[in-house]
Amino acid sequence: MMMRNPSEKYHPFPQVNLNGRRWPTRTIERAPIWMSTDLRDGNQALIDPMSIEAKLEFFEMLVAVGFKEIEVGFPSASQTDFDFVRKLIVENRIPADVTIEVLVQSRRELIERTFEAVEGAPRVIVHLYNAIAPSFRKIVFAQSKEETKALAVEGTRIIKECAAARPGTHWIYQYSPETFSMTELSFSREVCDAVAQMWRPTPDHKMIVNLPATVEAAMPNVFADQIEWMDRNMSYRDSIVLSVHPHNDRGTAVAAAELAVLAGAERVEGCLFGNGERTGNVDLVTLAMNLYTQGIDPGLDFSDIDGVRRVVERCNRIAVHPRHPYAGDLVFTAFSGSHQDAIRKGFAQREAGTLWDVPYLPIDPADLGRSYDAVIRVNSQSGKGGATYLLERGLGFTPPRRVQIEFSHAVQKVADASGAEVSGDAICALFKREYFEVRGPASRTDVSTMHFDGRTVKLPVSTVADEPHAQAVASAVASVAGVAVEVTSFETAATAKGETAVFIGCRIGDQAMRFGVAVHATATQAVADAIVSAVNRARWAGRKEAESEAVAA
Amino acid sequence: MMMRNPSEKYHPFPQVNLNGRRWPTRTIERAPIWMSTDLRDGNQALIDPMSIEAKLEFFEMLVAVGFKEIEVGFPSASQTDFDFVRKLIVENRIPADVTIEVLVQSRRELIERTFEAVEGAPRVIVHLYNAIAPSFRKIVFAQSKEETKALAVEGTRIIKECAAARPGTHWIYQYSPETFSMTELSFSREVCDAVAQMWRPTPDHKMIVNLPATVEAAMPNVFADQIEWMDRNMSYRDSIVLSVHPHNDRGTAVAAAELAVLAGAERVEGCLFGNGERTGNVDLVTLAMNLYTQGIDPGLDFSDIDGVRRVVERCNRIAVHPRHPYAGDLVFTAFSGSHQDAIRKGFAQREAGTLWDVPYLPIDPADLGRSYDAVIRVNSQSGKGGATYLLERGLGFTPPRRVQIEFSHAVQKVADASGAEVSGDAICALFKREYFEVRGPASRTDVSTMHFDGRTVKLPVSTVADEPHAQAVASAVASVAGVAVEVTSFETAATAKGETAVFIGCRIGDQAMRFGVAVHATATQAVADAIVSAVNRARWAGRKEAESEAVAA
Repeated sequence: MMMRNPSEKYHPFPQVNLNGRRWPTRTIERAPIWMSTDLRDGNQALIDPMSIEAKLEFFEMLVAVGFKEIEVGFPSASQTDFDFVRKLIVENRIPADVTIEVLVQSRRELIERTFEAVEGAPRVIVHLYNAIAPSFRKIVFAQSKEETKALAVEGTRIIKECAAARPGTHWIYQYSPETFSMTELSFSREVCDAVAQMWRPTPDHKMIVNLPATVEAAMPNVFADQIEWMDRNMSYRDSIVLSVHPHNDRGTAVAAAELAVLAGAERVEGCLFGNGERTGNVDLVTLAMNLYTQGIDPGLDFSDIDGVRRVVERCNRIAVHPRHPYAGDLVFTAFSGSHQDAIRKGFAQREAGTLWDVPYLPIDPADLGRSYDAVIRVNSQSGKGGATYLLERGLGFTPPRRVQIEFSHAVQKVADASGAEVSGDAICALFKREYFEVRGPASRTDVSTMHFDGRTVKLPVSTVADEPHAQAVASAVASVAGVAVEVTSFETAATAKGETAVFIGCRIGDQAMRFGVAVHATATQAVADAIVSAVNRARWAGRKEAESEAVAA
Repeated sequence: MMMRNPSEKYHPFPQVNLNGRRWPTRTIERAPIWMSTDLRDGNQALIDPMSIEAKLEFFEMLVAVGFKEIEVGFPSASQTDFDFVRKLIVENRIPADVTIEVLVQSRRELIERTFEAVEGAPRVIVHLYNAIAPSFRKIVFAQSKEETKALAVEGTRIIKECAAARPGTHWIYQYSPETFSMTELSFSREVCDAVAQMWRPTPDHKMIVNLPATVEAAMPNVFADQIEWMDRNMSYRDSIVLSVHPHNDRGTAVAAAELAVLAGAERVEGCLFGNGERTGNVDLVTLAMNLYTQGIDPGLDFSDIDGVRRVVERCNRIAVHPRHPYAGDLVFTAFSGSHQDAIRKGFAQREAGTLWDVPYLPIDPADLGRSYDAVIRVNSQSGKGGATYLLERGLGFTPPRRVQIEFSHAVQKVADASGAEVSGDAICALFKREYFEVRGPASRTDVSTMHFDGRTVKLPVSTVADEPHAQAVASAVASVAGVAVEVTSFETAATAKGETAVFIGCRIGDQAMRFGVAVHATATQAVADAIVSAVNRARWAGRKEAESEAVAA
């Protein structure tokens, strides 16, 4: 073990003293206000922060997706951010229904620089933060609680003064007590109350109090308790938009945001695909799509999720993980045979206009602009379902269940031998090789003539392709071959191109039943070809065996 | 918007009728039993499933990490899995305290094949599953509730019979009602009760009932409600190990597992780094480390997390995301200046043997076998803290606060201009260029002689390196240069090599104060060099300016 006892170094996060907690009994009924901090918190966590051009591309994508609040930077801390904010304003790039947000610390010169940056914007959220958690008071700033609170109030006062001097802009004020998640609740309330007391929000002109899990330090239910405690105990509650800003250090940021919304949060700050410092900010794509799959309009449009992802990957230079919910390359992919089989049936039985109910797929990939192509892929862990789905797509017909089972063994053998994925093309090629191109003693020249081991077989003529006709053809072969050829099953299917696929189960001599399969524009010719297929797939003394061993269903 | 109204296609997940729920008031006090399904559920979700050699490497790593229950495959469905299980047993590769687990469906021939695979193993968990959720009953199998339940009971009966016939192995039985998360709770209970009734577990010989969120379909608090409902209502509860198996479709699998443990789950199935079908299984690394950071021994050793990660990445051929909790490349990295500053102070003030309390780092990277090298990295979003940390590491001394601020502007300028990360080496080189190698009118030849613009300056001699001596040197230069040179601050620091670093604030003529910095084995020579540094960094008419503009603190 890495340590005999982690309790020597770490301690459990304290529980919140909350009587009669209400959040576990609630459900989410509408989307919160979303605030994208991709261009600020996300950007500052990149190895290579975005250029102005990249920020602009990202901003325009966020607007197109439907964000109404966008944190565009930390202009007093970075010249790039300052220049970007100026560009947005000077070039009139901010739509009328979008409010930009800028972050600033509680220092006069930084606040003044920030107001310079946003000069002339119609609507601005000025976002003040200071660190109020015990470890910061003790380790980083050596400040008392009073000094910490005074810093927040003083910053608020300066911002109020700067805003009052610029009545041409609609100013919204946001305050974040940093590392709220690790701060004594009573002190968080005390600071937020003092800040609100200075700003004096009203129900008609609310301020935003944003409670960050700057570091995710506890289970998401504890965070929800903290939010419910604040929701119940803050002053000016009816004049405050309660916001949360979860990070993902414990891998539970999405849950923390969702439970926080149950607990009273009305607004969520995060980044697309969870970019941000360290483990990232909460992923707004997952949050929005989680609502969507519950029938709740998220107010964000991810119907072209791959397009959104391309912009984010280009700007952040960080790839979205293949298992990332809703957006990863593999998240609608089933390799397992039983999963594939269930999905195939779910698609087949789905009726338009009904509620979504396809096994293993919590959302219709089409709602994210993704095709069904990647849903089913075949490897050595797959059964017949996946191969069948790929055959349907590649050859245009669905083999009957027992043919699927017979063929799945051939697929399994190839997959086991290669240890790798078997593509749809490879599966179709294997099917053709197995049934259509199999070599043996039999071949057909025209509608009425077959050859068996160099001898001619005259075929019976028929206008219908049915089991008796198949048996008649089989018997004609049998008479030349000198062994019994018994048709044990007969099925047909129309292909996507309007041809006829014929599947004939044959017992030849005392061998196990094997299928013969053929496709032809003329059904009776397909019957003859399917008999050829079955005959050639059987064992014949002195001949090389068909590639895969036949197994009866 | 992608759809006018998602409620036409999706519906909210129903709440659980649970009076007086207890889980939100509880805390986790010990680790659950962990079961790794990397070699089964994880493996079947890979584009290229593992070879036998890869499975063996993965298995041995799981054993070394401390797993006591390992699902090794689905031997009746894959020849590779069958061969792998045989290899483990025949070659005696299963430690005495490790129990292997094998998955099987409820069909006699598959169960018999499974018992063949595990023949001779000392301890085996035989894991039966069947799908019992409504969409499976309706869409996939067209089975009634009675038929679905009968299938589970019949599989249990066959396994009981096979186990009874092989008394040499200690058999443990596990049943999973598939897609428990989407099944009517009363029916899940009915099936689990019927299965237990057939198996007849006792408190001394428990069976495992594993409740899978095969597809994550609801918020994690709803899953916890479902688990608490089962915990309260199942028969044979004292003879059952209650297990969960969360998937991550909504990005909340870790939270679902944690809340499920609060709700009564005693065992968690998952994969390392969250591999598995679609969005993956719950990540056991995150779960274990979340416990660890609360002072709870997880019973799993991830003290060489990078070594574990290498094995997983090699076997799965899927990279761990750079922001993956605890294991990603960037999760202990701070680019933001204020974060860097706080982390630097946290490290500096940390006392051995005390509880961990470093801002922004929820865990000591050293506990995961990771060095501090990647903790602080500098880009255009960084302030002085990061650069200072990197200087400390690269040059072996800590510049005083005001020098840090002055230098941070030079770093910022480089970072803004390049738009990219600035490496520790580049920062040290920049510091040297800025302070040590700066060219100007002044230079020093020996301990008592300086040159200024070609003229010789005789330096005062001293045995102590203090501010009065620095002022005496400055005045000697001033007398030759013809402008006032005032020493406004004087600080020294010992370097890691035992030399003396001298930091002198100088006001030259009416210019803004600038620092001069020098390092020398002899402190008085470092004083003279620091004056040279300050003089050369000032503006001199007719000379090229020092590279970065000086800014007073």
